[in-house]
Amino acid sequence: MKLTPSPFAPASFPALPHVKGVQASTASRGFYTRRGVQRDDVFLFLMSEGTSAAGVFTRSLTASADVEWCREALKACGGRGRAVVANSGNSNAFTGKAGFLKNEATLAAMTTTLGLPKEACFLAATGVIGEPLADPNFVGEMLPELESKLGPADWEACARAFMTTDTFPKGAGTTCEIDGTPVAISGILKGSGMIMPNMATMLCYVFTDAAIAPELLDKLLRETVDPTLNSVTVDGDTSTSDTCMLFATGASGAPMIEDADDPRLAGFRTALMEVFRDLAQQLVKDGEGASKFVEICVENAVSETSAKTIGMHIANSPLIKTALAAGDANWGRIVMAVGKSLEPISRDEMQIWFGEHLVADGGMRAPGYDEAVASAHFAGDHISIKVDVAAGDASWTVWTCDLTHGYVDINGAYRT
Amino acid sequence: MKLTPSPFAPASFPALPHVKGVQASTASRGFYTRRGVQRDDVFLFLMSEGTSAAGVFTRSLTASADVEWCREALKACGGRGRAVVANSGNSNAFTGKAGFLKNEATLAAMTTTLGLPKEACFLAATGVIGEPLADPNFVGEMLPELESKLGPADWEACARAFMTTDTFPKGAGTTCEIDGTPVAISGILKGSGMIMPNMATMLCYVFTDAAIAPELLDKLLRETVDPTLNSVTVDGDTSTSDTCMLFATGASGAPMIEDADDPRLAGFRTALMEVFRDLAQQLVKDGEGASKFVEICVENAVSETSAKTIGMHIANSPLIKTALAAGDANWGRIVMAVGKSLEPISRDEMQIWFGEHLVADGGMRAPGYDEAVASAHFAGDHISIKVDVAAGDASWTVWTCDLTHGYVDINGAYRT
Repeated sequence: MKLTPSPFAPASFPALPHVKGVQASTASRGFYTRRGVQRDDVFLFLMSEGTSAAGVFTRSLTASADVEWCREALKACGGRGRAVVANSGNSNAFTGKAGFLKNEATLAAMTTTLGLPKEACFLAATGVIGEPLADPNFVGEMLPELESKLGPADWEACARAFMTTDTFPKGAGTTCEIDGTPVAISGILKGSGMIMPNMATMLCYVFTDAAIAPELLDKLLRETVDPTLNSVTVDGDTSTSDTCMLFATGASGAPMIEDADDPRLAGFRTALMEVFRDLAQQLVKDGEGASKFVEICVENAVSETSAKTIGMHIANSPLIKTALAAGDANWGRIVMAVGKSLEPISRDEMQIWFGEHLVADGGMRAPGYDEAVASAHFAGDHISIKVDVAAGDASWTVWTCDLTHGYVDINGAYRT
Repeated sequence: MKLTPSPFAPASFPALPHVKGVQASTASRGFYTRRGVQRDDVFLFLMSEGTSAAGVFTRSLTASADVEWCREALKACGGRGRAVVANSGNSNAFTGKAGFLKNEATLAAMTTTLGLPKEACFLAATGVIGEPLADPNFVGEMLPELESKLGPADWEACARAFMTTDTFPKGAGTTCEIDGTPVAISGILKGSGMIMPNMATMLCYVFTDAAIAPELLDKLLRETVDPTLNSVTVDGDTSTSDTCMLFATGASGAPMIEDADDPRLAGFRTALMEVFRDLAQQLVKDGEGASKFVEICVENAVSETSAKTIGMHIANSPLIKTALAAGDANWGRIVMAVGKSLEPISRDEMQIWFGEHLVADGGMRAPGYDEAVASAHFAGDHISIKVDVAAGDASWTVWTCDLTHGYVDINGAYRT
């Protein structure tokens, strides 16, 4: 089916800074040819020697063969990754022995063509689950072409190459300084449905030319992913292929940072968080069928985990998501979702706000409730829901989109 | 909005057996009048002296005032309930002090009109959450009319009186024998959306003229509800008002049963389970927008709880529910849902069946997979999904429906 672009699709792809030490290329393997579409569907990223790598992956117990390999490689390489090959059009998940053979063939081509140790090479794939690949070398045999095209990363071309039901290519980047040396951060991400990442999101690659020791890079990735990519949901479904990797080439010439408490890291940390938050919000804005962008802040919960759990119960409720789609300010459904979370809350002290308008208070509709004001907020395409659960002092914010006819259409037709 | 009847709506309401010791009546309080609909929206059930009562209620932490009262009354009455008043059109949930006052006024009218102790009187309400009632006595002042109309239960009229987005009235009943004495069981239920009961379902009342001691009745209700009403889901959302009550009048003349191991209970137990299973399946068949009835059997899990958790992850997945709506046999999404449950499974030994057709085996698509056969099964309106997770020897079955455009429409327009 032809996908309608998200109403949040930007007019153009953002200008992302060049990351020294990173080269990239894309090519067309023909995964979409049978649907009559000619497009690139494979990319290669090659990083300079000495690059630190960190990754987080789906916690799904039916994880794809590619995810299994990445976990294994990341341990074996001691945090020193050099290359990534990803394809869209086939997820290589639940493909049994064939999935393993595709990985082996692709890795063999990467080691031969790029002259790299196998464990420095990472893989990813996204598409329909369970579709077997007829030829294990289907991706591997693209390596010579990909290698010959290597050059400064064309972020937009790479972001387009791993799209599936995404309606716009997603990227974010910024610059900062480490000890006076300019440092760049640029990342790309794909994802639209089957989105409630658990440890990471669909596929996300972020690159920096800062010099960060592998153990610290891993720590930075984990602390950044939790309030960003792990705090969005489109449909509550968790992919078999979620992968988020962060590479630091060190090619900026900035000093190597090894200690999480190093004060020179402050600006970088903030910049990294901004890039990830931007990518996470783009994910939700391109949620399948999305017409509304929704921010849900849960305040005064007993813990951050509790606040996030409550937020996710609100964000994943089909009744709330369909009310959002219709612009119906049905605040009673927020009450329902808070209640079913089974997290500690004070029913008779909690407050619910739509934008600046207090809609529920004291265990009932707020005295100053105004349906027209609440409805006006819900009529917009950026919706803010705040719930003060009056049980503690911890807060968390999650982002989601609405559940529209578009979602039903897209997911009834995905395999055709 | 005008609701399209479920394709599973029966041609007529089933003939339910008369339950001795039960009288009922219905009336119109006008909750739907503002929508231009003239219909009964309140019912009263009155049971003979000595009736045993048991109930299970929503575990939601934002439970309605009616649920709070029923919990309190059930403790206070020592399992001896006599009357139920329920209304549709207003849920009396999250209405603060006004909710408490509506209960007090209704209970006062019940004690006066029916001559009953307050704690033998039960309440329920269903409709939009958080809508305040202007007059606390709105329901209470109907009691004289309801009392004057009391007679043998017109099950269909009662089942219609508490419908909200239900498209057909739901009832089930049967007869059995206890120690040679004929005994009747009849029950009614309402529910269509906000359905993933947690301890009970939306509103369900079952009556028998068997003589069962209160403690045993409570035990029987709990053991029956778990594999029936607690094993269905429409949208994964749990109501603030879920209530299921079981009354045993003893008016059949059958001997009083007090011991769960009494062999004379065998036939009754089976009959009770049949009635509850029938009601639970009707609930799903009238799920908001439902076009398919789906049975999901999870086999060889490590425990019944684990099997049920996996089954519910499949049943609540929007990606699976939209694929079901489209008749798309997208078995890879079953793999996804099993994986995200985080329950113990063997990815490479699990088997997935659509009807009699094995679709996944050995960590990949089954060798004998036939898209035409799988699609033919998904084209029907009764769909059977079996997942053998190869991790233990426990099984559980859950029921659900698909996620259609109808669900999106109904829940965007519910308050209007």
